[in-house]
Amino acid sequence: MDSPARVSMGDAWSWQVHPDMESERRQPSFDVERLTNILDGGAENTALRRKVESVIHSDPVFSLKDNYFMSQNERYEAGVKKKFHLHMIAQRLGWSEHSREFRYAFRALTGDLALGLHHIFLKSLQSLGSEEQIAKWAPLCNEFRIIATYAQTELGHGTYLQGLETEATYDADTQEFVMHSPTLTATKWWPGDLGRSATHALVLAQLICSGARQGMHAFIVPIRSLQDHTLLPGVTAGDIGPKMDFEYTDNGFLQLDHVRIPRENMLSRFAQVLPDGTYIKLGTAQSNYLSMVVVRVSLLLDEINPLLEKACIIAIRYSVIRRQSRLRPSDPEAKVLDYQTQQHKLFPQLATAYAFHFMGTSLQEFFEESYSAILDRDFSLLPELHALSSGLKAMVSEFCTQGAELCRRACGGHGYSKLSGLPSLVSRVTASCTYEGENTVLYLQVARFLVKSYLQAQASPGSTSKTSLPQSVAYLTAPDLAKCPARRAADFLHPELYTRAWAHVAVRLIKDSAHHLQTRLQSGADEHEAWNQTTVIHLQAAKIKSTDS
Amino acid sequence: MDSPARVSMGDAWSWQVHPDMESERRQPSFDVERLTNILDGGAENTALRRKVESVIHSDPVFSLKDNYFMSQNERYEAGVKKKFHLHMIAQRLGWSEHSREFRYAFRALTGDLALGLHHIFLKSLQSLGSEEQIAKWAPLCNEFRIIATYAQTELGHGTYLQGLETEATYDADTQEFVMHSPTLTATKWWPGDLGRSATHALVLAQLICSGARQGMHAFIVPIRSLQDHTLLPGVTAGDIGPKMDFEYTDNGFLQLDHVRIPRENMLSRFAQVLPDGTYIKLGTAQSNYLSMVVVRVSLLLDEINPLLEKACIIAIRYSVIRRQSRLRPSDPEAKVLDYQTQQHKLFPQLATAYAFHFMGTSLQEFFEESYSAILDRDFSLLPELHALSSGLKAMVSEFCTQGAELCRRACGGHGYSKLSGLPSLVSRVTASCTYEGENTVLYLQVARFLVKSYLQAQASPGSTSKTSLPQSVAYLTAPDLAKCPARRAADFLHPELYTRAWAHVAVRLIKDSAHHLQTRLQSGADEHEAWNQTTVIHLQAAKIKSTDS
Ligand SMILES: Cc1cc2nc3c(=O)[nH]c(=O)nc-3n(C[C@H](O)[C@H](O)[C@H](O)COP(=O)(O)OP(=O)(O)OC[C@H]3O[C@@H](n4cnc5c(N)ncnc54)[C@H](O)[C@@H]3O)c2cc1C
Ligand SMILES: Cc1cc2nc3c(=O)[nH]c(=O)nc-3n(C[C@H](O)[C@H](O)[C@H](O)COP(=O)(O)OP(=O)(O)OC[C@H]3O[C@@H](n4cnc5c(N)ncnc54)[C@H](O)[C@@H]3O)c2cc1C
Repeated sequence: MDSPARVSMGDAWSWQVHPDMESERRQPSFDVERLTNILDGGAENTALRRKVESVIHSDPVFSLKDNYFMSQNERYEAGVKKKFHLHMIAQRLGWSEHSREFRYAFRALTGDLALGLHHIFLKSLQSLGSEEQIAKWAPLCNEFRIIATYAQTELGHGTYLQGLETEATYDADTQEFVMHSPTLTATKWWPGDLGRSATHALVLAQLICSGARQGMHAFIVPIRSLQDHTLLPGVTAGDIGPKMDFEYTDNGFLQLDHVRIPRENMLSRFAQVLPDGTYIKLGTAQSNYLSMVVVRVSLLLDEINPLLEKACIIAIRYSVIRRQSRLRPSDPEAKVLDYQTQQHKLFPQLATAYAFHFMGTSLQEFFEESYSAILDRDFSLLPELHALSSGLKAMVSEFCTQGAELCRRACGGHGYSKLSGLPSLVSRVTASCTYEGENTVLYLQVARFLVKSYLQAQASPGSTSKTSLPQSVAYLTAPDLAKCPARRAADFLHPELYTRAWAHVAVRLIKDSAHHLQTRLQSGADEHEAWNQTTVIHLQAAKIKSTDS
Repeated sequence: MDSPARVSMGDAWSWQVHPDMESERRQPSFDVERLTNILDGGAENTALRRKVESVIHSDPVFSLKDNYFMSQNERYEAGVKKKFHLHMIAQRLGWSEHSREFRYAFRALTGDLALGLHHIFLKSLQSLGSEEQIAKWAPLCNEFRIIATYAQTELGHGTYLQGLETEATYDADTQEFVMHSPTLTATKWWPGDLGRSATHALVLAQLICSGARQGMHAFIVPIRSLQDHTLLPGVTAGDIGPKMDFEYTDNGFLQLDHVRIPRENMLSRFAQVLPDGTYIKLGTAQSNYLSMVVVRVSLLLDEINPLLEKACIIAIRYSVIRRQSRLRPSDPEAKVLDYQTQQHKLFPQLATAYAFHFMGTSLQEFFEESYSAILDRDFSLLPELHALSSGLKAMVSEFCTQGAELCRRACGGHGYSKLSGLPSLVSRVTASCTYEGENTVLYLQVARFLVKSYLQAQASPGSTSKTSLPQSVAYLTAPDLAKCPARRAADFLHPELYTRAWAHVAVRLIKDSAHHLQTRLQSGADEHEAWNQTTVIHLQAAKIKSTDS
C-alpha cells in the first residue's frame, strides 16, 4: 500500500484544511471549546478575541506574506506602518491602551510591530513618575505626540546598574540636570526604538546633586526635534546594527554631551531633588528598579510564553500532516506525530506552555495586589515580588527557549527555513534569557532571597521573623517536607503529592546551599568569597525553587 | 576603588591586545605551545597552519568587515568571489584539494565560502562512482569546469529515503535514463548550491529498469547550460528562500520533467544497468548510503566541532575583558570569568570541544581503515561504521549546538548582536542537528544496532556470533561491567574508572531497552508496535552509548 495522496496546497493563502488535520480534529477526547474558554478566561473573552483576530487577519496591511523577504530596513518601516495602522484601528473601534482588545491585537501582531519600547516607557513612567508627571507625559505618549524609549543598558554595563556611568548632575543655578556620557563605555546601547524613532528617552543615570552621588534615577531626555526629527544639540544616536532578530525594532545607541533638561524631568515618585539641590528619598534603595519588575511580569504573559505557544502549534500541526517512514512495512507512511519519540519531544513543551499560562495568571494576581501597595510607598511585598518575578522570568524564558528550539528541530529541514515561522520565534524567545535581567544573575538574586528566608525560618519557633516569612517560601518551615512525601512511582501521578515532592526537593536544595555557604564561612572564607564559591549550588536551588513556584 | 580604566578600542581592526587579556596570558599553568602542537598533530602542522592563516587573514578579499551588513544576495556573491579567490591562491601556492593547507584555509574561511556542495558531490562521486566515472568527472570538478551539487532531499522526504519520489526510468532503446519528478512533493528541496550556481546535480532517485524498481541510486544530471548558465530543457530550479543562516549558499529546489541523461551517468561502483536494461547489484542494499557516511565523518571534523571551538574562544576571551559587578564591595569590578557560575557555563564547553577533537581523530582512523575495504566491496565493517558515525554525528551536533548557545548567552546582550560572531555560529551549528540525518532518526538507527549487538552478546558463550561482536560494542560481553566499577565519588577522578563506569551505564541501558522491547513482544505487541512503544528508552541508550564512544 502506498502513502495517501499528497495534497497540493494550491493557493498557499487559501484556508483549506488539510485532510490529515481534519481527521485529527474530528474526534477530540475533550471539549475543545470549553478548554479554549478556560484559557481565555471565559466565553465572552473567547468571542472578543476571535473578533479582534478576524479584524487583524483580514487586514491586508498586516499580511505576513513578504515578511521574511524584507531587508532590515524594510522590516522596520513595515513595523512602524503596522504600528500606526493598529492604533488607527484601535481608535476607530474604541480599543483603549489597556483593553483586552488591544492585548489580543498585540498578541496576534507581536513580532511585527515597531515602537514596543514606547509602552515600556509608559509603564516606567507610571511606576516611577509622580502623579503630575504622569498627567503631563502619559497623554503625549498615548497620542504619539512623542515617541519614547527606555535607555538603561550601556556599552559597559547591563547587569550591574550601580556601574552605569551616565551622569545627571544637578545645577541649582539653572534648576537643570546636566546629562552626560563621560566615557565611550557610558554610551547607552541596546534600547529599542532608540536608533531612529524615539524623540524622548527615559535615561537611567547616576544622580549627582550638591556634590553627592545618589545612585541610579530616571530622567526624561528629549533627543530628537519634534519639528524635523533631527538629533538635538549634544545628542549622538544611531542604530546598533544587525541582531539575531527584532529587525522591526531599531535598537540603538545614545551619547549625551552635557545635555540640559529641566529639574521636573527626573521621575520623582520615590525621590526628589528640590530646587536648591536638596535630595529627598521617598523610597528604598531598590524603588527605582520597580519599573523592571513591572516590565518583567508583563513580558512573561504577553511575549515569552506566547512564543512557546506559537512554536508548539506550528510543530504539532506540522507533525500531523508530515508523513515520513512507515511504522509497519505494510502500512502507509505514518504521521510523524505517531512516533513515540516525536510525542516525547512535543507534548512536554505543550504541557509547559499550559503550565506557564496558568502560572502567569496567578503571578498577575500577586502582582496587582503588591503593585498598588508599592506605588503607595508600602514596600513590604517588594522583596518577594522581586524574587518571584526574577525567578519566574529566568525559568520561563529558559524553558520557553529550549522548548521552542525543540519544536523547531522537530520539523526537520522545514523548521530551518524562515518561512516556517519557527526560526524567528526561537531567535526572539532566546533574547528573553538576556534582556530584562540576565538569567543567571536573576537566579542568583533569587538565591540570596532564599538563603535569607531559610536562615529566617531556622530562627527559634514562633519568633516574629519566622511568622513573617514571605508567603511563597512559607513551606520552608513545614516539618513534613523534610522527607520526600512521594513513596512510590505512582504517587507522582497525584498532583498534590507531586507538588509537595517538588517542594521537598526545593527545601532540601535550599538547605544544602545554605549549609555549603556556612561551611565555607566556617573554614575562613570571607562572605563574598564564600558566596562566589558556592554560586553554582545556589543557582540550582533557585532554579528548582522557581520551577516550583 | 574604581574599576580599572576602560580601554578604547580605537581602530577596531588594530591588533592591539587588551591588557586584561595580556595579563591572563602572562602566566599560563601549562605550556601553551606544546598543547597547540598536540592539537595540530605536530609542530610542523602548527607552523603550516599559521602560514596558511596569515595568508588568509592578510588578504583584503577575505575581510569580514561588511559580512553582517550584506543582504542575502550580497553574501552569496561575496561567497562565490571568496571561493574562487581561495582556489586561485591555492593554485598559485600549490595547495592541492586534499592537502593540509587547503583544510586549514577552509577552516579559517568556513561560513564565508559558497559552493560547499561541490566538494560533497566529489566525495560522493569517489564513494559511489566507478573508476572510469571518477576519472571523467573529478577533473572537471577540480578545475571548476562544472559546478556540482548533491540533490537527495525532496519536499516530501528527507529522512525516509525509500520514500523519495524522483524517478530514473531506463530506456533501453536510447540507452538513457529518464529523470522525472512525478509530483509536487518529489521536488528536490534544500540542496546547497542548487538554487543559482550548480551546472550539474547528483540526483538521488528511484531506479526503474526493465519495469522493476531497484531503490535509490545516484545520477549525474546536467541542469544548467555550460554556455550561458540558463536552465536546460525540462529543468525547473531556483532558490528556496530565507533560512536561519547559510546565506552564502543558494539552497535550492529542482523539478525534472522527463530529462534524459546517458546510461553512463548512473554512478556504478555498487550497481550497474547494462545496455539491455539488466540490473546488476555489486553492493548491499545500503551501499548507496556510503556517501552520507563519508560526508558525516568529514563534517564532524571540519564543520561541527570547529563551530563550538570558535564559540568557546569568543566567549572565554570576552569573559576576560568584560568587567561587571564586584566580588567584594571594595574591589574593582571583576572579570565575569571570575564568577563561579560563568566558569560553570564555559569550561565544560571548552572541555567538550577538546574531547570531540580527539574523538574525531580516532573516528578518522577507524573510518580510513573501513572505507578502503568498503570501496573494494568488503562490507563487513559498514554496519559498525554506519552506527558509529551516526551516533557520533547526532551526539556531537547536539552537544555543540547546546554549547555554542551557552557560549553566546554567556556574553549577555553583546552575544545577541550579530557583530559578536556568535549568532551565526549558533544558527549554523544547530542546522547540523538536522542535515545529514536528523538526530533522532540517527539515534534510533544506533539503537537498532545496539539491540542487535546485545542479543548477539547474549548468545551462548564462545559462539561465533559472540566473538564477532563489533569492536566498539565488545564491552557488552565484559562480565565486570554488570556492576558500576566506581564506588566512591573520588573514583570519578580516575579517567579509566570513569570510562568504565560510563560503559557500565551504557550496558545497563542497552540491556534495559532490549528487555523493554522483549516484554512488549511477550505481551502480544507485534515487533513494529513494540519498537515504536519503546523508542524513547532506546533513544536514551543510544545517546549514552554515543557519548561513551
Ligand atoms: C534584544 C535585546 C533588547 C534589549 N533592549 C533593551 C532596552 O530596550 N533598553 C535597555 O536599557 N537595555 C536593553 N537590552 C540590554 C539588556 O537589558 C542587557 O543586555 C542585559 O541586562 C544583560 O546585561 P549585559 O549585556 O551587560 O550582560 P553581562 O552582565 O555583561 O553578562 C555577561 C555574562 O556575565 C555574567 N555575569 C554578569 N554579572 C554577574 C554576576 N554578578 N555574577 C555572576 N555572573 C555575572 C552573566 O551571567 C553573563 O553570563 C536589550 C538586550 C537585548 C539582547
Ligand atoms: C541547512 C540545511 C542544508 C541542507 N542541505 C542539503 C543538501 O545539500 N542536499 C540534500 O539533499 N538535503 C539537504 N538538506 C536536507 C536535510 O538532509 C533534511 O532536512 C534532513 O535529512 C531531515 O529530513 P526531513 O527534513 O525530511 O525531516 P523529517 O524526517 O520530516 O523530520 C521531522 C520530524 O520527524 C521525525 N521523524 C521522521 N522519521 C521518523 C522515524 N522513522 N521515527 C521517528 N521519528 C521520525 C524526526 O525525528 C523529526 O522530529 C539540508 C537541510 C538543511 C537544514
